[in-house]
Amino acid sequence: MSVFTPVSTDTLSAWLSRYAVGRLVSFEGISAGVQNSNFFVTTTLGRYVLTLFETIPRPELPYYLYLMAHLSHHGLPVPGPIANRDNEYLGTLSDKPAALVVRLSGRSEMNPEAGHCERVGAMLAGLHLAGLSYGRRQENPRGPRWRAATGTRVRSFLTEADQALLDAELAFQARQEYTALPHGAIHADLFRDNVLWDDERIGGVIDFYFAGFDALLFDVAVTVNDWCSRPDGTLDPERTEALLATYHAERPFTHEELACWPAMLRAAALRFWLSRAEDFHLPKPGELVQVKDPDEYRDLLRLRIEDIHPLPVA
Amino acid sequence: MSVFTPVSTDTLSAWLSRYAVGRLVSFEGISAGVQNSNFFVTTTLGRYVLTLFETIPRPELPYYLYLMAHLSHHGLPVPGPIANRDNEYLGTLSDKPAALVVRLSGRSEMNPEAGHCERVGAMLAGLHLAGLSYGRRQENPRGPRWRAATGTRVRSFLTEADQALLDAELAFQARQEYTALPHGAIHADLFRDNVLWDDERIGGVIDFYFAGFDALLFDVAVTVNDWCSRPDGTLDPERTEALLATYHAERPFTHEELACWPAMLRAAALRFWLSRAEDFHLPKPGELVQVKDPDEYRDLLRLRIEDIHPLPVA
Repeated sequence: MSVFTPVSTDTLSAWLSRYAVGRLVSFEGISAGVQNSNFFVTTTLGRYVLTLFETIPRPELPYYLYLMAHLSHHGLPVPGPIANRDNEYLGTLSDKPAALVVRLSGRSEMNPEAGHCERVGAMLAGLHLAGLSYGRRQENPRGPRWRAATGTRVRSFLTEADQALLDAELAFQARQEYTALPHGAIHADLFRDNVLWDDERIGGVIDFYFAGFDALLFDVAVTVNDWCSRPDGTLDPERTEALLATYHAERPFTHEELACWPAMLRAAALRFWLSRAEDFHLPKPGELVQVKDPDEYRDLLRLRIEDIHPLPVA
Repeated sequence: MSVFTPVSTDTLSAWLSRYAVGRLVSFEGISAGVQNSNFFVTTTLGRYVLTLFETIPRPELPYYLYLMAHLSHHGLPVPGPIANRDNEYLGTLSDKPAALVVRLSGRSEMNPEAGHCERVGAMLAGLHLAGLSYGRRQENPRGPRWRAATGTRVRSFLTEADQALLDAELAFQARQEYTALPHGAIHADLFRDNVLWDDERIGGVIDFYFAGFDALLFDVAVTVNDWCSRPDGTLDPERTEALLATYHAERPFTHEELACWPAMLRAAALRFWLSRAEDFHLPKPGELVQVKDPDEYRDLLRLRIEDIHPLPVA
């Protein structure tokens, strides 16, 4: 989304005085993200990203902020949240929960090649391994329960054919047994626009506000569906193998994961079809959301049902 | 110094497996620093600086590492130490205490202009203010006690004229009353090569391994002597005023500090004359120290005695 909540220079300057980051030099809204208001903030001492949380309930926010702190603390290129003078990550600005994080450098790569996918696979495995020692647990907010509930909410807006697809897929997913898969803290939204490249290196992994505790393989499937799909939605074998091979080298897939992979690619496609359909058909009042085409992920789901993709690792 | 302790690829790879930073890609020694072995380390997940501590006693190291973590945590561009899987900052590599920190980007500016000095003054004040909430305390390792003891050690190597200068200055400094000055955690070595510039912005303040608890004004004097001196050692008024004005705007100098400033510029010059004289006349066996000319800071001390510089702030 674009910026929902306007912030004045005076308000921000006063708020920043609760931090040790020096004085406000400039700030600007960021036209990205789908559920928060984000600003680039430059002070006399550094560069930060300010996030005002528009939709996530305040009690759920520490999970995200402490996860980012945990991963950053262990050396991953994740924006560390900044503590204020009271040593707290979460503040309040313009009546919204607000947090300041380090601004990492780099740009998104929207046309990744196999080399990028290799690095993303290794990074995703690194995030999962480092996340194993994270002590907090919060359910994936777009996990199985959300998917079933959202299916019910959006069903009546769909065509008959799409309703049939949705019903069949929700029934199929309900029959899957994912509980035996390795679980942990997952990013759950590692799309191309959430990875910042500093030349060929990943300088930052951002936007952890869909993170949660779930099957690690779900995170891999979300990532592969975005990074390795061709414009027609089919998987590019070279990029797919590159991403999965480097992931597997760091955290070898289990037998159960190998068996569940085709179904998990479908679950990941379903999750984004549903969220986009909800944003499209049931927009929240006042939101200036960048509405993304729900049909892209409906078509991706159809393709993942038609073409079974075994995990291309031994 | 250059690298003292050699590290093999196998040893480093094995050591890094205790961290969540991925796999070793490459590393190289850094020919900078005067008391540690430093390496740039690139892994599959990020870029780091590895430091092997050659001379600092192990019990003193947590003070430095937690100070860096504290400042980074509060949003200052200071390299945060990386915790290993046991959640510890300090490890052991090649029988030396060792730590991994984030590698910040930027380059040193060895010919600073007034604009650079403005930013350095604001940053130094920011470090001092953020350091006030740091809970650990450790004496400045190059403070008054060290200066008196080192004077005794190096005196016999000096010319008669230099011995007279040293005796007079140590006696002068012993008469100063610095205890009423604001104290806190100081960097104590904020030379030009310890500030990394990312264009016009300070991207990093590095090398906190001389930090300690002392008069904040001593840190300001160390910084001014390096950043604001002309090649002949005299202070450049424009740079000096730029640095002190932005510092003063963030943390106003007290009356006691105004009174002590000329003496403190001398104390800061003395400290580097003494450490360089010690490195020159009493090199530690096996050290490949980049020996710096002690006479530069002896001459600077003479100049600061001859020319009294009041603090150029109201």
